[in-house]
Amino acid sequence: MRATLMYAAGDVRVEDVADPTIHQPTDAVVRVLLSCVCGSDLWPYKSLPPTDTPRHMGHEFLGVVEETGSEVRTLKAGDVVVAPFTYSDNTCEYCLEGLQTSCVHGGQWGVRGVDGGQGQAARVPYADGTLVKLPVGEESALLPDLLTLSDVLCTGYHAARTAGVGKGDSVTVIGDGAVGLSAVISARLLGAERIVLMGRHRTRTDLGRDFGATDVVAERGEEGVARVRELTGGQGTHRVLECVGLKESVVQGFGVVRDGGTISRVGAPQFTDVPFGFRDFLRNITLTGGVAPARAYIEELMPHVLDGSIRPGRVFDRTVGLEDVADGYRAMNDREALKVLIRP
Amino acid sequence: MRATLMYAAGDVRVEDVADPTIHQPTDAVVRVLLSCVCGSDLWPYKSLPPTDTPRHMGHEFLGVVEETGSEVRTLKAGDVVVAPFTYSDNTCEYCLEGLQTSCVHGGQWGVRGVDGGQGQAARVPYADGTLVKLPVGEESALLPDLLTLSDVLCTGYHAARTAGVGKGDSVTVIGDGAVGLSAVISARLLGAERIVLMGRHRTRTDLGRDFGATDVVAERGEEGVARVRELTGGQGTHRVLECVGLKESVVQGFGVVRDGGTISRVGAPQFTDVPFGFRDFLRNITLTGGVAPARAYIEELMPHVLDGSIRPGRVFDRTVGLEDVADGYRAMNDREALKVLIRP
Repeated sequence: MRATLMYAAGDVRVEDVADPTIHQPTDAVVRVLLSCVCGSDLWPYKSLPPTDTPRHMGHEFLGVVEETGSEVRTLKAGDVVVAPFTYSDNTCEYCLEGLQTSCVHGGQWGVRGVDGGQGQAARVPYADGTLVKLPVGEESALLPDLLTLSDVLCTGYHAARTAGVGKGDSVTVIGDGAVGLSAVISARLLGAERIVLMGRHRTRTDLGRDFGATDVVAERGEEGVARVRELTGGQGTHRVLECVGLKESVVQGFGVVRDGGTISRVGAPQFTDVPFGFRDFLRNITLTGGVAPARAYIEELMPHVLDGSIRPGRVFDRTVGLEDVADGYRAMNDREALKVLIRP
Repeated sequence: MRATLMYAAGDVRVEDVADPTIHQPTDAVVRVLLSCVCGSDLWPYKSLPPTDTPRHMGHEFLGVVEETGSEVRTLKAGDVVVAPFTYSDNTCEYCLEGLQTSCVHGGQWGVRGVDGGQGQAARVPYADGTLVKLPVGEESALLPDLLTLSDVLCTGYHAARTAGVGKGDSVTVIGDGAVGLSAVISARLLGAERIVLMGRHRTRTDLGRDFGATDVVAERGEEGVARVRELTGGQGTHRVLECVGLKESVVQGFGVVRDGGTISRVGAPQFTDVPFGFRDFLRNITLTGGVAPARAYIEELMPHVLDGSIRPGRVFDRTVGLEDVADGYRAMNDREALKVLIRP
């Protein structure tokens, strides 16, 4: 089959790789209908040193079950399914707590002999635990919206949930990328009253307003903090959803959070130390979040997608075929595209 | 009156200062029956540069109301009261949320013309909001236990509450000082099943066992982390209460916390950056806590003290008169005493 490989920063190729087959009785093979490029794929796209053992790319996909191992109980060939961005058995202690990203048998796509998602098909470990059946057909117009359950919507939702967003809350979302916009959808879904979106790309923040942002702050850094404080009577917001992953955006988070408030970060941190000393200790700030256990949220969010009350697939503003995936990476990296859908 | 002043590291003196009087109609004057030395008093005791404007020391006290301003409604002369370690109006938005440490009118003892607690008396701003009446007489044997409501017990309780300690939880308490031991009491009170106390002072950890610690780990750093993991099936504990305030103890906290778990820190941080990057992001660790809004917890904890079901006053293992307070500081700093009670 054809699949996406990264050989170095900026060097993405589509090549022939081995067709997936059942290795374990708990595996399934899924033919990919849709996948996409993630903001986190852009970190290696900017920085990966040249390598002879290229990375198998992609961790967001939905598709059709083609084959199942002998121990797979809940799925059969022909089922349309979505895969969360990590696989998990969904039976261990961590999975039962809703922390499938710490599953004792779980892991990442594209490493240790597991396929990436940006290809024509994938072997799925622990298929019963990992995959969620979608009650739609292969031709459903909702597939792009449902694909967001794989990562981006669940990541935004994880930010909102771990930040404790509830009815009437004031929330700042830092970042107008696809995760930030998904965080806006999620904050709205959980009842936030005021949602300040910090971002400076007009088409993205306009989509954020459609999703429920009540205010947009284009300024960054100290200026941005001052503007959010001005909007909130000098106090900042109870909840802050940090959807970028840079140190500056976390620092911005501390600037806009109200005393006693919570910052949840779901942008993969590109730094090791967080400036979180005595000053914010005196303010009783909480820093939470982390990599989203997408699997925990799929069933909960799916009904809102199916009934059309949220339209998270609107974050896809470009579609490429698999052979053109390199151009999809380039377009996202150049900020020409917000999020790129791949139709193998 | 006589009060405690600090002129430099290691230089604590008891001197004559102005008698407290009513400045504002919301003030009260309290004659101090008991106060004490706090672990946080030892930071300036180790590091304060010499000064001609000495610090007025002490922020934990209980006493008898001597006089009230014209707007004080809930207290009268003769009432026995405890003061939390910050004063607050208890009516502002933050106070109503239980975050009296962020009170818009609140402040610290010993600065801006407000007396410290280690003296014969103190003017108390916002007396109705700040002070809590104790249903005991001046001679009650429970006064040392009730004094812990001023700070140390509430600080330990804040750690346990913000960490989300609940029935059946596993908890690690880092630090066997008076706050750590109060955190053990608090974790027990909130239903924790397993309480691992990390500390290496035998008399203190023995008291910790009396308070409810189920395990004691004397090792520190990596060795200590390995020991806690060994005790918890390799996983660490759900909740970690960091009661020291040094960077090493926070790092130790990350080492012993279970994936998806929470570290609450109540030791005033003696550092600015927290090593909290990608690794712990992948583990979904939460860092919470902060300076304890003691006022929020006094009514909730008092019944447990009054009925003798907890005995937090056992942390006081030495008593000095006011004139000997310098020796109390020395004894605590030399770790001869765990916590020093002062009887003016």
